[in-house]
Amino acid sequence: MSEYITHDRTGKSVGIVEKKYYTFAHPPDEMPLDSGNRLGPITLAYETFGKLNADRSNALLVLHALTGDSHVAGYYTETDERPGWWDNMVGPGKGIDTDRYFVICSNVLGGCMGSTGPSSIDPEIGSPYGLRFPVVTLGDMVRAQKKLLDHLGIQRLLCVIGGSMGGMQVLQWCIQYPDMVKSAIALAATMRHSALAIAFNETARQAIIADPNWNKGNYYGGKKPDVGLAVARMIGHITYLSDEAMRQKFGRRLQDKTDFSFSFDADFQVESYLHYQGAKFVERFDANSFLYITKAADYFDLTRQNGVGPAVNDLSATRARFLIVSFTSDWLYPTYQSREMVTTMKKNGLDVSFCEVDAQWGHDAFLLPSDRLSGLIAGFIESATHDQ
Amino acid sequence: MSEYITHDRTGKSVGIVEKKYYTFAHPPDEMPLDSGNRLGPITLAYETFGKLNADRSNALLVLHALTGDSHVAGYYTETDERPGWWDNMVGPGKGIDTDRYFVICSNVLGGCMGSTGPSSIDPEIGSPYGLRFPVVTLGDMVRAQKKLLDHLGIQRLLCVIGGSMGGMQVLQWCIQYPDMVKSAIALAATMRHSALAIAFNETARQAIIADPNWNKGNYYGGKKPDVGLAVARMIGHITYLSDEAMRQKFGRRLQDKTDFSFSFDADFQVESYLHYQGAKFVERFDANSFLYITKAADYFDLTRQNGVGPAVNDLSATRARFLIVSFTSDWLYPTYQSREMVTTMKKNGLDVSFCEVDAQWGHDAFLLPSDRLSGLIAGFIESATHDQ
Repeated sequence: MSEYITHDRTGKSVGIVEKKYYTFAHPPDEMPLDSGNRLGPITLAYETFGKLNADRSNALLVLHALTGDSHVAGYYTETDERPGWWDNMVGPGKGIDTDRYFVICSNVLGGCMGSTGPSSIDPEIGSPYGLRFPVVTLGDMVRAQKKLLDHLGIQRLLCVIGGSMGGMQVLQWCIQYPDMVKSAIALAATMRHSALAIAFNETARQAIIADPNWNKGNYYGGKKPDVGLAVARMIGHITYLSDEAMRQKFGRRLQDKTDFSFSFDADFQVESYLHYQGAKFVERFDANSFLYITKAADYFDLTRQNGVGPAVNDLSATRARFLIVSFTSDWLYPTYQSREMVTTMKKNGLDVSFCEVDAQWGHDAFLLPSDRLSGLIAGFIESATHDQ
Repeated sequence: MSEYITHDRTGKSVGIVEKKYYTFAHPPDEMPLDSGNRLGPITLAYETFGKLNADRSNALLVLHALTGDSHVAGYYTETDERPGWWDNMVGPGKGIDTDRYFVICSNVLGGCMGSTGPSSIDPEIGSPYGLRFPVVTLGDMVRAQKKLLDHLGIQRLLCVIGGSMGGMQVLQWCIQYPDMVKSAIALAATMRHSALAIAFNETARQAIIADPNWNKGNYYGGKKPDVGLAVARMIGHITYLSDEAMRQKFGRRLQDKTDFSFSFDADFQVESYLHYQGAKFVERFDANSFLYITKAADYFDLTRQNGVGPAVNDLSATRARFLIVSFTSDWLYPTYQSREMVTTMKKNGLDVSFCEVDAQWGHDAFLLPSDRLSGLIAGFIESATHDQ
């Protein structure tokens, strides 16, 4: 039985989804980082769903995108307005079936949703790290998640699954811990950021850095760089939607008016939407974490592995079976990049299935309810249970 | 004979390209605006090339894109590092042949390149307008250019030509002064901004507005909102290039280093390029003008004519012959938008030719040297000389 209810919010089961924390890498045993630095202690926030079976063979790790968190599904309390970020996929009888699998969702190192990041207290000085926090890589994020799995007593994962930067972590998992992953699903992901993706991220970072309140990262306890972070989020949001999605969702419709304002107020609905997304984001996200996580995503390169050596050959060490899914209207990580990934995997003799889903909603399509996608994922995980 | 030399910069002809100014709409005869306001006096900066013939039938108006100016070709002085922005197209024997045609390039109302805009002195108060400057439309820009042509004694234009926002002004010219335009060429243009194009512009505007130095537009004489304007320009630059162009131009190549910096410095060449474009732009452009001109471009709607009435039917009043050109890799104003324009024109019984140019350089492709494009434009203008 599932530990939580996602749609029926009237019963007593509501509220049993709980954010948990694991702290490790205590000095002097700090975790080594790809940069050559060491970091510790490290806390990771995570949530679990369903039950681990007796032979510990039904564990599934879900990895989130850039600004996501460990709250992948369900509600914490009865008053929550929204469930976790992938509630349409994770739950009893859903694509990732919590009646059958033990599902773990881990937040990332460098984040601000309960895990150690630039807004955490640096134990050496007793105040937030700010830019003293070391630049981390996706390899470092995965290294930390491995410690969490050790703690949970899981030696092998039935499946590692994620979309966008979560999908990039999936690939990193297969390279870094090839014996631990039985199957892997990467949605709307890429082997490395294109110049275009780096350009968007760097422009968003510069919007934060341009905000005087950013103050070289030392803003904790004072005014936050909210306006810069809001602009950064607006840039991000544009890349998550497609031209077609924006036309359908907004077109040139005006917001609460019948004619142009002839001012610099928001005239169009798409402008109001972006303002709203920006304003909402600054309430929940730390600007420095945005800098660190986007930098980690830009550094990720499956053909280079975070600057510490070529990784393509390492792919052949994995024993995982892969499902790669791209979305037709995703112009941030377009289908050709998934095809490149599939070609590389085939060259390495891997067992890989590829599916391009016809979707008009752009990069974010992987987050939206889709019977086809749920069925595809459920079937792939089911078939992995029969593998050795 | 041409009045200037574009490639041989050794001779005495260098320096004869000269920026000129025309001032009109003096109080109490200010120019009416689409917003209902009135504005005057108005100065437009312009440049001319070649000679007007005896029957004044060889005049050609070139209109520039968002942040362009009247300096379309040639050099002002021997020490200029670069010629005008379309020097590969405008000159003796080129696509727009200054040996045959009298070419006028006019700056836009609201700009900051010698024409009246928010950085100009408001005669009522003796200091710069700032946000007291009225929001203008592409219709207003064209209305001002019409006054300039009256001043130059030109009653009919052999051709009006422009790319991007220049192409949108071309369309506006044909609607607003249908009897004055014999032929029209719109390159990489659109009948109206998509939600995606508005989204990029609004995010760029918010980057400026977020800069405390912007100070609600009152920054003249003090610190300028340079960091906000630089971010706005970075956003713009991303939209001018294509994914493919960025991959070829930059890929994931590092800037002046062999490995990642593990800092927030620019690691990748594409980051350095964007920083450079941002820094260069703030030296020449006014942040308020950026707000006004992008807003005018967002308001433009050939199916709505700046909010003052439907314009599609007005298209049928034009006697112009059209050439519409789109570029395969332009994702800001994609080919489907040019096709929509062509369909609308055909429904109005207009004489329209359409060409999609295979180009990998994105929206900015229309600015790059291309024998094919030059030949296309030269042939179209030549054929227009034979029309009645």
